[in-house]
Amino acid sequence: MEPFSSNTIVQKRVFTLPHLELESGETLTDINIGYECYGTLNEKKDNAVFIAHYFSGTSHAAGRYAESDVEPGYWDTIIGSGKAIDTDRFFVIAADCIANLNTGNPQVVTTGPKSINPKTGTAYGSSFPTVRLTDTVRAHYSLCRSLGIEKLHAVCGPSMGSMQALEWAALFGDRVKRVFGAIGGGLAIEPYLISLLDQWVMPLRLNRDEGLVASLELVTINALSPNWAHNMFKRRPFAITEALREVARTRAAIADADSFLRLADAVRNFSVRENAKNISAKILWIPCRSDSLIFPEFAERGVAEMKALGLNVELEWLETDGGHLDGLSQLAQLAPTIRRFLE
Amino acid sequence: MEPFSSNTIVQKRVFTLPHLELESGETLTDINIGYECYGTLNEKKDNAVFIAHYFSGTSHAAGRYAESDVEPGYWDTIIGSGKAIDTDRFFVIAADCIANLNTGNPQVVTTGPKSINPKTGTAYGSSFPTVRLTDTVRAHYSLCRSLGIEKLHAVCGPSMGSMQALEWAALFGDRVKRVFGAIGGGLAIEPYLISLLDQWVMPLRLNRDEGLVASLELVTINALSPNWAHNMFKRRPFAITEALREVARTRAAIADADSFLRLADAVRNFSVRENAKNISAKILWIPCRSDSLIFPEFAERGVAEMKALGLNVELEWLETDGGHLDGLSQLAQLAPTIRRFLE
Repeated sequence: MEPFSSNTIVQKRVFTLPHLELESGETLTDINIGYECYGTLNEKKDNAVFIAHYFSGTSHAAGRYAESDVEPGYWDTIIGSGKAIDTDRFFVIAADCIANLNTGNPQVVTTGPKSINPKTGTAYGSSFPTVRLTDTVRAHYSLCRSLGIEKLHAVCGPSMGSMQALEWAALFGDRVKRVFGAIGGGLAIEPYLISLLDQWVMPLRLNRDEGLVASLELVTINALSPNWAHNMFKRRPFAITEALREVARTRAAIADADSFLRLADAVRNFSVRENAKNISAKILWIPCRSDSLIFPEFAERGVAEMKALGLNVELEWLETDGGHLDGLSQLAQLAPTIRRFLE
Repeated sequence: MEPFSSNTIVQKRVFTLPHLELESGETLTDINIGYECYGTLNEKKDNAVFIAHYFSGTSHAAGRYAESDVEPGYWDTIIGSGKAIDTDRFFVIAADCIANLNTGNPQVVTTGPKSINPKTGTAYGSSFPTVRLTDTVRAHYSLCRSLGIEKLHAVCGPSMGSMQALEWAALFGDRVKRVFGAIGGGLAIEPYLISLLDQWVMPLRLNRDEGLVASLELVTINALSPNWAHNMFKRRPFAITEALREVARTRAAIADADSFLRLADAVRNFSVRENAKNISAKILWIPCRSDSLIFPEFAERGVAEMKALGLNVELEWLETDGGHLDGLSQLAQLAPTIRRFLE
């Protein structure tokens, strides 16, 4: 593995899992998982930090594919040499989920509805099996084991990534030492979020051809905040319409509707409540005060429930006003907290 | 007029305005406006309080049409004999807006897309002209004048009704003595709300036949709060899906898609910023702390802007956690404040 620094170009790698028994009982074969690595795995192989991505995210958590890339990976401000998740100390792995949304992004490697079903020779489409976040987590753990990693120093992630991080700790017990979840809620999906996810998929149910842009527009505004919108558009309020539509169009151009439905269904069914007793990891939970998607009260309730279950959880607030997406862009403000937690 | 008490049955009345020049420049003729009255107009005709309704509301602000009615009007807890808006003192008038959404409700009388265009003999449908909140406000003032009322003791309303109340004060200057707005924002629509309104109409653009249920489902969840959803559904989280869909279906069965589009467009274009200097009314503003539709920060900014313009505004918070709709059901908690404001 090449060592990583913020000036180093990152490379997509691919792990293939021959088969995986899904939560649904169905078996998926030849599962391809794209992943990126930053930093160096030590000899004891005990310095691995796994990064799980958010709903519309990918394995591109840090670095750039080419010097000319305008944007680095989504958590580049906290992953890298000397950063909160310090690649001088840790070997960081970030992987694409099963049924990743961004099938048209050439840097995404996933097995999902757009993949060829080996049994039929054609794409699964809507016949792709139901998946749960645990399915992706099991596949990702297999990826880690393929690299010789049995225990994780930490599993981290924002939003849907924080849900996966809890699933890791619930599934693999003391093989997960630390969980750092940003912009997460509690141990299970909240009823309000179930309803928002219903609204997210609604455009696809109403109009399969044109719905994806609408779905991604709703996702986008939900992930921003009232104050973000005010600060951006107060001089030209109506410009928000075309601006968000353009973002949604850009996202939809590389996204897949069936994958969107599968992922929304996975998040909708998130719960580690039954298995929370298996969690031995220390937990750092960083919600955002202005989040109007995974609302602050979800994290308050979640942390209270974790504490009531005897889990070792530390709560720190991101006190910014940009909403959910600040959990991607603003976490460097809490770099000392994250760094100390990973000691 | 019959005097009103909470045990008195209310009656729909109809006012017909021969013609109205709309903001758009078009002229609308034979505009029918349903209205209800509670209390008695005094001889000086100076005790009138006008009530403007919310987006999906009607003129049924208080009382019951029949003893057997399960629910009274939406503000029945604050309008009536001895209540915050005291019908022993005030003559209260509540009227349907132009292009009211609930065209299938036999108690709603409105002129909108479902009305017959006298020029063609067929329903306007999507050819109904663009309307603004000011058009409804002008029609409502004509209704008041038809009753001999030139000056309003107060104009009150929740949500879209609070916007209309400000429009009244901006249009008619010292003829409006008081404005009481509940669950309102500021002097103009916020960019974030513009985007939410875009999302509300999106299902109708994607599928005109089935979109209205989806639109009303999104309206409904936006008007509730994360904690409301938690408290209602924590034991059966997935029950929220069918519960909200059933509410939306019930609402859609009596609602009209073209009217929804017209009204959303009217709200989207709300602004009294240009005419705010005409406002001489005292203002009572009661936003709700847990509002996740017209967010608390909108009211904070709004009241700050009103004060900066020299308006006489008093801010009081509804400190409940049920969200926007608490501005309909929970205002009796602030009855003393409202009562004192109306002295």
